[in-house]
Amino acid sequence: MKLLRYGPPGEERPGLLDSNGQLRSLAGVIDDIAGEALLPSALARLRALDPDTLPKVAGDPRIGPCVGQVGKFVCIGLNYADHAAETGATISTEPIVFNKWISAISGPYDALHIPRDSLKTDWEVELGVVVGEGGRNIREQDALQHVAGYCVVNDVSERNWQLERGGTCDKGKGYDSFGPIGPWLVTADEIGDPQALQLWLEVDGKRYQTGSTATMIFTVQEIVSYLSRFMRLLPGDIIATGTPPGVGMGQKPQPVFLRAGQWLRLGVEGLGEQRQLTVQD
Amino acid sequence: MKLLRYGPPGEERPGLLDSNGQLRSLAGVIDDIAGEALLPSALARLRALDPDTLPKVAGDPRIGPCVGQVGKFVCIGLNYADHAAETGATISTEPIVFNKWISAISGPYDALHIPRDSLKTDWEVELGVVVGEGGRNIREQDALQHVAGYCVVNDVSERNWQLERGGTCDKGKGYDSFGPIGPWLVTADEIGDPQALQLWLEVDGKRYQTGSTATMIFTVQEIVSYLSRFMRLLPGDIIATGTPPGVGMGQKPQPVFLRAGQWLRLGVEGLGEQRQLTVQD
Repeated sequence: MKLLRYGPPGEERPGLLDSNGQLRSLAGVIDDIAGEALLPSALARLRALDPDTLPKVAGDPRIGPCVGQVGKFVCIGLNYADHAAETGATISTEPIVFNKWISAISGPYDALHIPRDSLKTDWEVELGVVVGEGGRNIREQDALQHVAGYCVVNDVSERNWQLERGGTCDKGKGYDSFGPIGPWLVTADEIGDPQALQLWLEVDGKRYQTGSTATMIFTVQEIVSYLSRFMRLLPGDIIATGTPPGVGMGQKPQPVFLRAGQWLRLGVEGLGEQRQLTVQD
Repeated sequence: MKLLRYGPPGEERPGLLDSNGQLRSLAGVIDDIAGEALLPSALARLRALDPDTLPKVAGDPRIGPCVGQVGKFVCIGLNYADHAAETGATISTEPIVFNKWISAISGPYDALHIPRDSLKTDWEVELGVVVGEGGRNIREQDALQHVAGYCVVNDVSERNWQLERGGTCDKGKGYDSFGPIGPWLVTADEIGDPQALQLWLEVDGKRYQTGSTATMIFTVQEIVSYLSRFMRLLPGDIIATGTPPGVGMGQKPQPVFLRAGQWLRLGVEGLGEQRQLTVQD
């Protein structure tokens, strides 16, 4: 299933994209694409519905973040060997874990805000994992059973704030609009192997990032298991699993950063595409 | 006002401690001590109530975290000059910002869980700031108007995970029960100057931490203003403002870490006291 949320910011309603690409309402069925609606039993109930019986959504509403009421937005850093190389970092022996503030979450086509004193706003296309059944100390062999589905994430980053302002990189990851998720939460059964997905990102039509989840250092199942030793994962938590090469700060001979009035397009195989216009705050 | 939440985990109800120390229910008045109930106008409506007209809460219910539906739990590191010295760190020219996962939030008297593979679970008494009116790019001179109130925070930390496992310190800050908040959210009008509060912490009756918010490197108003440049603050966000000297890893000649069966007591002047029994996971 392709689950999504539509409507104005803060008032999104749950919906589903049918096999003809028609948006249908789940408003009478579940309250939101969030929390316990992401448990395996709840997804099974949705799967049992005949989409043709759900009301068509008229018009062309805004598409919101594909998950609501997110509790944790956990990010994994430098998880592609080739991206680690472009940043000059050494490869970590354990996943690098950081945080994106949930107030940074935005819809897949919402404007991307460049902070007023930003020097180095940069992009990162990523495979997002949406937690279904939560847990702690999840074994690797069980980890994919805890995944409700996947979505595109743009892990937008202010590199000066992230790397040059002291403390953790969290400082550069959580500005408003720095976390577009969606357009869809695609349930895990439709994706198959999460380690065989292409990812890509373009700015104003120029391709910057091209990668495959096959080159992740730590796989989705390793990441889910690992994180669950340090925190309780809960339904609706989102995990951004790192970005392939081609970020702005890695460009040669000069790094490239975003400026107002640019269009980003990014996608992950099977998970749809995001588009963001940059605007200056 | 001293606002609090009582009842079983996940089912807490809003309450208020009257001037005689009697717990009274706010269940008919507000849904929760959370979000928009923390806006200045909402607090003014509570303040206008006569506590004697509110139902007394019978018995001795569990006291939960003093704020519900927390969106962000932002922490400031090394914010006391004397604590920075004990850790061997240099003093940062800007606030060090990190994250505590909100699934770590617990009640002030709930058990403190030592993770099964923990080597170095440690304590940190802190002044917690609860955001009322949110905002972005808040000026320092306006910052205290964005504070709904204050609470005690124990910023429990696993030092091995925080410092020796790669990546950010977030890894060691967010295990379940590592974020007791409360017992009360004391509204800002009752506290006066947040830079003149004593803090203390004991383990099994031995005093380890004694400090004053007067020795903070960055003040509450500086922190609120600073953070609001990197993220939108929202009602119910919590900011832990750093810990004074005396953490376990700073003890001489050997660091001291928590083990199962110990009692912590900690408090901040005017904000009440927490007590936690450590248990082994």
